[in-house]
Amino acid sequence: MRITSILVAAILATGAAAQTITSPDGNVKLDFSLQKGKPTYQLTYKGKDVVKPSHLGLELAKDKHASKGKNETDLIDGFVVQSTNTSTFDETWKPVWGETATIRNHYNELEVNLSQPATERRITIRFRVYDDGMGLRYEFPQQKTLNYFLIKEERTEFAMAGDHIAWWLPGDYDTQEQETQETRLSGIRERFNTAVNWENSSVAVFSPTGVQTSLQMKTDDGLYINIHEAACIDYATMHLEMVDAQTKNLSEKLGGGSNAYTPDPTPSAYPLPKPFTFVSHLTPDATGLKGAMQTPCKTPWRTVIVSDDARDMLSSNLILNLNEPCKIEDTSWIHPVKYCGVWWEMIVGKSAWNYTDEFPSIKLDQIDWNKVKPNGRHAANNEKVKRYIDFAAKNGLDEVLVEGWNVGWEDWANMWKRDVFDFVTPYPDFDIKMLNEYAHSKGVKLLMHHETSSSTQNYERHMEEAYNLMNKYGYDAVKSGYVGDIIPRGDHHYSQSMNNHYLYCIQEAAKHHVMVNAHEAVRPTGLCRTWPNLVGNESARGTEYEAFGGSRPDHTVILPFTRLQGGPMDFTPGILETQLSTWSDNPNYVHTTIAGQLALYLTMYSPLQMAADLPENYEKYDDAFQFIRDVAVDWDDSKYLEAEPADYITVARKAKGTDNWFVGGKCDENGHLSVVKLDFLDKGRKYDCTIYADAKDAHYQSNPKAYTITRKTVKKGDTLKLKQAPGGGFAVSIIAK
Amino acid sequence: MRITSILVAAILATGAAAQTITSPDGNVKLDFSLQKGKPTYQLTYKGKDVVKPSHLGLELAKDKHASKGKNETDLIDGFVVQSTNTSTFDETWKPVWGETATIRNHYNELEVNLSQPATERRITIRFRVYDDGMGLRYEFPQQKTLNYFLIKEERTEFAMAGDHIAWWLPGDYDTQEQETQETRLSGIRERFNTAVNWENSSVAVFSPTGVQTSLQMKTDDGLYINIHEAACIDYATMHLEMVDAQTKNLSEKLGGGSNAYTPDPTPSAYPLPKPFTFVSHLTPDATGLKGAMQTPCKTPWRTVIVSDDARDMLSSNLILNLNEPCKIEDTSWIHPVKYCGVWWEMIVGKSAWNYTDEFPSIKLDQIDWNKVKPNGRHAANNEKVKRYIDFAAKNGLDEVLVEGWNVGWEDWANMWKRDVFDFVTPYPDFDIKMLNEYAHSKGVKLLMHHETSSSTQNYERHMEEAYNLMNKYGYDAVKSGYVGDIIPRGDHHYSQSMNNHYLYCIQEAAKHHVMVNAHEAVRPTGLCRTWPNLVGNESARGTEYEAFGGSRPDHTVILPFTRLQGGPMDFTPGILETQLSTWSDNPNYVHTTIAGQLALYLTMYSPLQMAADLPENYEKYDDAFQFIRDVAVDWDDSKYLEAEPADYITVARKAKGTDNWFVGGKCDENGHLSVVKLDFLDKGRKYDCTIYADAKDAHYQSNPKAYTITRKTVKKGDTLKLKQAPGGGFAVSIIAK
Repeated sequence: MRITSILVAAILATGAAAQTITSPDGNVKLDFSLQKGKPTYQLTYKGKDVVKPSHLGLELAKDKHASKGKNETDLIDGFVVQSTNTSTFDETWKPVWGETATIRNHYNELEVNLSQPATERRITIRFRVYDDGMGLRYEFPQQKTLNYFLIKEERTEFAMAGDHIAWWLPGDYDTQEQETQETRLSGIRERFNTAVNWENSSVAVFSPTGVQTSLQMKTDDGLYINIHEAACIDYATMHLEMVDAQTKNLSEKLGGGSNAYTPDPTPSAYPLPKPFTFVSHLTPDATGLKGAMQTPCKTPWRTVIVSDDARDMLSSNLILNLNEPCKIEDTSWIHPVKYCGVWWEMIVGKSAWNYTDEFPSIKLDQIDWNKVKPNGRHAANNEKVKRYIDFAAKNGLDEVLVEGWNVGWEDWANMWKRDVFDFVTPYPDFDIKMLNEYAHSKGVKLLMHHETSSSTQNYERHMEEAYNLMNKYGYDAVKSGYVGDIIPRGDHHYSQSMNNHYLYCIQEAAKHHVMVNAHEAVRPTGLCRTWPNLVGNESARGTEYEAFGGSRPDHTVILPFTRLQGGPMDFTPGILETQLSTWSDNPNYVHTTIAGQLALYLTMYSPLQMAADLPENYEKYDDAFQFIRDVAVDWDDSKYLEAEPADYITVARKAKGTDNWFVGGKCDENGHLSVVKLDFLDKGRKYDCTIYADAKDAHYQSNPKAYTITRKTVKKGDTLKLKQAPGGGFAVSIIAK
Repeated sequence: MRITSILVAAILATGAAAQTITSPDGNVKLDFSLQKGKPTYQLTYKGKDVVKPSHLGLELAKDKHASKGKNETDLIDGFVVQSTNTSTFDETWKPVWGETATIRNHYNELEVNLSQPATERRITIRFRVYDDGMGLRYEFPQQKTLNYFLIKEERTEFAMAGDHIAWWLPGDYDTQEQETQETRLSGIRERFNTAVNWENSSVAVFSPTGVQTSLQMKTDDGLYINIHEAACIDYATMHLEMVDAQTKNLSEKLGGGSNAYTPDPTPSAYPLPKPFTFVSHLTPDATGLKGAMQTPCKTPWRTVIVSDDARDMLSSNLILNLNEPCKIEDTSWIHPVKYCGVWWEMIVGKSAWNYTDEFPSIKLDQIDWNKVKPNGRHAANNEKVKRYIDFAAKNGLDEVLVEGWNVGWEDWANMWKRDVFDFVTPYPDFDIKMLNEYAHSKGVKLLMHHETSSSTQNYERHMEEAYNLMNKYGYDAVKSGYVGDIIPRGDHHYSQSMNNHYLYCIQEAAKHHVMVNAHEAVRPTGLCRTWPNLVGNESARGTEYEAFGGSRPDHTVILPFTRLQGGPMDFTPGILETQLSTWSDNPNYVHTTIAGQLALYLTMYSPLQMAADLPENYEKYDDAFQFIRDVAVDWDDSKYLEAEPADYITVARKAKGTDNWFVGGKCDENGHLSVVKLDFLDKGRKYDCTIYADAKDAHYQSNPKAYTITRKTVKKGDTLKLKQAPGGGFAVSIIAK
């Protein structure tokens, strides 16, 4: 509910247009002004600079249709303030699923209505200031002088106050699966080339100081600052390009590898901002343009989360709050999911998605699948799937993912092949009717898989039939995938059109009561508030990379600060047989201890959690697996007990609709001693506590499978001292008696 | 049926690999050889050079996925002949609709199997030689060394033997609606810039010597030569780039206007062929590449039609014959259509497609159409549509097209607006149920209209619902449109992906028993043989241009030699009120006489013919309109009596299933005297003959509406002397007694 609304009279003198609003608790202060006609803002937290004076605006592209006489004018300068409004908003809403049962959305808002007299155009910049940061966006009212426009580049600046430590991914139009880099801002340029995995053919970087969001930073005076975006709808995904002393112009051309993107050679006409300033850089379409807009419209929110306590970064709901309320009326069919699946053994290389090796390539309409020669390595077969269904039923898992069930995997990726899958035809050894009936008879559902190979037109052509098939056989969730280059060629995973596609899939799925877990899709920006059937995304480096060479032990204590700000990740934890060579030819190992794997079910929040290892591996570690059986996936409350980016995270969560708590702690390669005070328990009540911890000599490399399981009774006020091994962690279940 | 097949033993010596085949009548001779490893062909007609020795091949693009170590090799040279096969084919097939009841497909074939030892790749070049020309195509068998490839450019050469006269359109990736130019080959470069309508924002030309196909030529020694293509499926449309003395490299960069395309700056590594040689130039995708292929696959046929009699160019079925037989099993729902429609008055500017002028732009999901303010100019309203239905019923027309029936026309074109139409929501003044029932009660159908605004993704998303709506209300044909730039941005109207889209629409329509008449789509290449529900295309400058400034009088005596080679055109003839200012504010006039308009129903063959003028105009000229009422639109036989490109065409056609004949003659701005011998009539039979002719003093500019109607009885052997005025023509109905 909107509590107050104050109309500030039109201020026509451009120099005098300063406006200030603060957060409800007064700690966050935002100043807006016009500097020589340029919209400018700055942000402080408890008096410390968070964003120094930074300009706002957009460069527009000259459209070919506008080329006959009409020149396009940028929305950068020449503005005057027409009016400003401030207001306060405070409401509490209930997410369909989440870390807490309710979420408070409390902010002060400043609406600045600007006009550009030379063009007779009007825009609005809206700021919302929360106790933990701020969001700002551009709004373009419908008007005769601004109906359709093309964005050459958004020029939103974030001027940092110093040479902060930053955890960053190389800015890239197509992949987010790199490892996070930790450097000072001044070190980004030097680190950049080693940070890019040039072996990944999807790499499409654009500048040696370009980074992705969400970007987590820490200042020398103890502030944690995060820059990301919220509600990215029908707009290109934002990256940040940092200006340093060596920056010649935006965007800089990369010298690098053969996959490097060659940007528009026309440099911006505007002067470079000062060093340590990030400037927004949108994902282009195939022609290099950044967006096609029609008024009335608005950009996503550009968000800055800030606190002097790292735990606040993790408990922040700023991004969810900046999204629109749920648009699905009946959400009764949306539910958290704990699942296993026919997947890890293919990732590790022991079995295959494809059914035959007989042909150098295939065309779906030219093959009689009943006559082809099986390769004997096809995992998604009736026998194996039944085994997984039995396993899920026995262990209380809700669903079983089966990848490789449908024809087309023989030559599916990176071939520029449009008609790669039809999403409805099973391989001959996958009896879709029998297997679904078998699963349902045991109280389990199958989880659908739609790998699109990024052939988006092909997916959209088959989507309705594909969802109809799901409805027919009783699937209620789909894992979709976008491996490889986008078809149509020239488009990118994070462009305006692709962001529209991902949301289209979610909306069409909702019509069919289907939950979506999209892999390789764009990084989330809180859209799961509006479309809670978006129960998961990958959009980062998941557990699969442990089979591809490994990820650093601190990877999972960075992701909650960065990738998870926008929404849950289908990280696929739970690899208890961390040495892959014990059961396969894969020489790699998982870079955590077993206890660390258990901790991820708590530290990596998601309503969709996989038990990703093989049933036979879980049988080997059945006592540890008990925690995966027990742990909840939806919560009434969550308390971040300690946190430091790239070092450690400890969280306690109260299982939905119960009095039971689960506590998890995860650390980096240095180990960590956690002291967990159980002051969140109910007073006077006793609890059965089971502690899954690293053994004394555990180590993610040398001794990852050494864990202890301790049971005791606990009560409010007790303290648990839990030593995490290097690359380790712990998991605790606290069940009310 | 394949009559003979001769296996020629493998010829390994590259120099000795010459092969010759001739047409069944021996007049057309094709020689194939390898010249220093380059596939080379030449073509003669009655001993005269048609195509001098010309190379064949494709340049391949280096894929980013192949960039790691693997270099791509062109399919241009280094070939040896593995084997050759010759065979003869002779069959007669029945088109679902057409100019004749049966079509003979009789050719000699040469199959040349080549290998490139350096790459271990194999390709086949297949030649089919007919009495009236030849077709050749590349075939790529499935093989381990050639699975997927990207085409940088196809390099099929057509070396002309002299400085022929050519009728050409500027080569363009997005429009075919320019006027035809007549120059010597050596004059193309000089004429080019004046030939391009730079005012048309769709212009996307690529070279100052680039031309479109079908390209009609005439040699100084009396040969007529036509170059086009057949069966263009999932492949980019071919243009021709001419090498002249000034050609520096292929493709040349155009200096021209702001809409000019900037081609790949990397020139071909291969030497330029000799002057007067055309080299194929495919339409690129957004990244500049020309095609993504997967073996087994083949290119479209590259066709050369040749004769020393211009009439043979018009009666040729070579392009239809090179297409695959009909793939629709039950064709009973496909039928010729004579129609009128709510269209011309909008083209002329008297009424409007859109319903309201209230908003600077609209979003479909944000408007309550029942509350908006009508502009009072919306043509597709119940009252007017009923009037057209009454008119159709009274005059024996089968269907009524209604454009502007559905919401979205307020801001539909060239705005890069993706969600521009939904194809199912009528404006409030168009009662879709009532109007269809009203039409059906009078034995008439409505003809659906789907303007896509070239937002192809939006169209595909709504297509199933749109066709379902048609089925629900009893529509059986759709006119679709592709005005404006293709969305996704960067794509072109004639690219591989768009050609795939057009065919997808036709195939999906066939599932719904819907006939398709696609405007602004790619120029046809005979696909209507395979998919006879493709009953029409625009793909050239239609009658609408008479309201936009006019077309030259010779336009319609060029189109049958060029545009119509690939399939019928929905030219929309029949404008009897040639002075538009008599009923509107439009100052333009139609550049034919009234008799010339009637002639077009015969000279511009199509199974779909519009009576394009307004009912009230037809009432003014009801005696002339009688011919439009009477004329058939499907034929058992057609005889081209005289023809000369850009001068005149006279044809006699026998109406399907009857003994009645209709004869039409059309000429250019110079007038023409036709002497029509009625030796095609049945011997001993009498016929009622009605002659619609230009009056003595008729002239398309000064006196276009002067016509005479003469009735007499005729018999076989009679002769009609028919004088056509400048820009005039005649139409004759000959009804068996």
